[in-house]
Amino acid sequence: MLSKARQKLIASLVQKKQRDIHGLFLAEGPRMIHDLIQSGLHPQFLVGTDQWTADAEISKKNPETIIVTANEFKKISLLKTPQHVLGVFPKPENHFNNNAIKRGLTLVLDGIQDPGNLGTIIRLADWFGIGNIVCSIDTVDVYNPKVVQASMGALVKVTVHYTNLMAFLSTYNNSFKNPVYGAFLEGESIYTQTLSQDSIIIMGNEGNGIRPDVEKFITNKITIPDFSKAGKSAESLNVGVATAVICAEFRRQSISGT
Amino acid sequence: MLSKARQKLIASLVQKKQRDIHGLFLAEGPRMIHDLIQSGLHPQFLVGTDQWTADAEISKKNPETIIVTANEFKKISLLKTPQHVLGVFPKPENHFNNNAIKRGLTLVLDGIQDPGNLGTIIRLADWFGIGNIVCSIDTVDVYNPKVVQASMGALVKVTVHYTNLMAFLSTYNNSFKNPVYGAFLEGESIYTQTLSQDSIIIMGNEGNGIRPDVEKFITNKITIPDFSKAGKSAESLNVGVATAVICAEFRRQSISGT
Repeated sequence: MLSKARQKLIASLVQKKQRDIHGLFLAEGPRMIHDLIQSGLHPQFLVGTDQWTADAEISKKNPETIIVTANEFKKISLLKTPQHVLGVFPKPENHFNNNAIKRGLTLVLDGIQDPGNLGTIIRLADWFGIGNIVCSIDTVDVYNPKVVQASMGALVKVTVHYTNLMAFLSTYNNSFKNPVYGAFLEGESIYTQTLSQDSIIIMGNEGNGIRPDVEKFITNKITIPDFSKAGKSAESLNVGVATAVICAEFRRQSISGT
Repeated sequence: MLSKARQKLIASLVQKKQRDIHGLFLAEGPRMIHDLIQSGLHPQFLVGTDQWTADAEISKKNPETIIVTANEFKKISLLKTPQHVLGVFPKPENHFNNNAIKRGLTLVLDGIQDPGNLGTIIRLADWFGIGNIVCSIDTVDVYNPKVVQASMGALVKVTVHYTNLMAFLSTYNNSFKNPVYGAFLEGESIYTQTLSQDSIIIMGNEGNGIRPDVEKFITNKITIPDFSKAGKSAESLNVGVATAVICAEFRRQSISGT
């Protein structure tokens, strides 16, 4: 049986403030729980229904598991279609350091608000071999349950770091001679330039793009050309989609030259 | 004041069955309403709060408009953050014909379920100059309010057609000598082949991919290479993201050769 105190704890962890106070976050679904535990995270406890059984990997770690009825589970579930197991995990320590990003691609997010977009970006960063994402303080929290679910387990493979972007970019510019790319509607086409594999790519907020204070640090404005009829599409690309197209082009050039 | 009958009509149009019976769909938000009206659609009626004013384009068409309080609007709104104006529109007639797709790129969707994904795909199809999307009958309805909102007005620029894919692809194969590409986790890299600008690209269901019955018609299996460390990412790319990366590469080749 799930105690009232734990029910309350789970409900509270939907809020960032409570996640910060407790140092905990929520994740749901057999695959997600498996991936988090396999990556080395040890849950404070799991809550499962009798429709869920721990696999070998999870059993080995022997986490405390509370079995509840489907109805009880529905009350704590984060999802429209409850996924039979939910875990309360400690937030992993962040091993980000500036020197680690001298080589390779790093994504910088300036005020991304939509949890689904951040989850999508973490997932595609993993696919495109980008190990570090640096977010402005006002970017949506990576441990927001919707981000956790949308990241599909890529969360444990990509380091997501929150910091003052101006200070971070100033240090980056001073320490390394790498380009700092920023995605704009007006910029040089990603298809007509050689993109550096040791660099930063900055993506801006869904509605407002990159802030002027952040823009100052950009050395190369880049854009995805508009191929729509008359070159006038109804709307700009969604930020997750735009990030994917840009990262894909960086990586394509790494295997085929420009 | 909004009549009970109209309140009921609006609530009913969240269901596909009712949209089909009435031949109507819902859209919300000043920009969306503007784009739909500008494209030539005439709403049966609009419902707005006093925080919304018709712009010149809308005023010219003089649609029937019912003004309600913010509280009344909240009850009919499709969104978490109500957007001050909602429209009931006739579903436009579908002008799809097979011969129109002999030239150019056509997207085929085999059982896409998530409304956000279909909306994203419509939006990026517009960006990449793809005028036609052909969906299997069980693909989520394009007039689902969540698809309409996620498509951000690109809905009126891209023709979305529902049909039996096997019959459609059989005709396509017999009529044209164009390639039929299908996206798979195992396929030839999109970066090591010349992609034809007169062809079909098939994208599969979020969980199950492309059905075997549909796969039979595919002439070229393509894939986005996995650039993650050890080439083993946590999860495949989201279907909206994958569609964007693939369409971008087709279009890149159209301007720069392979």
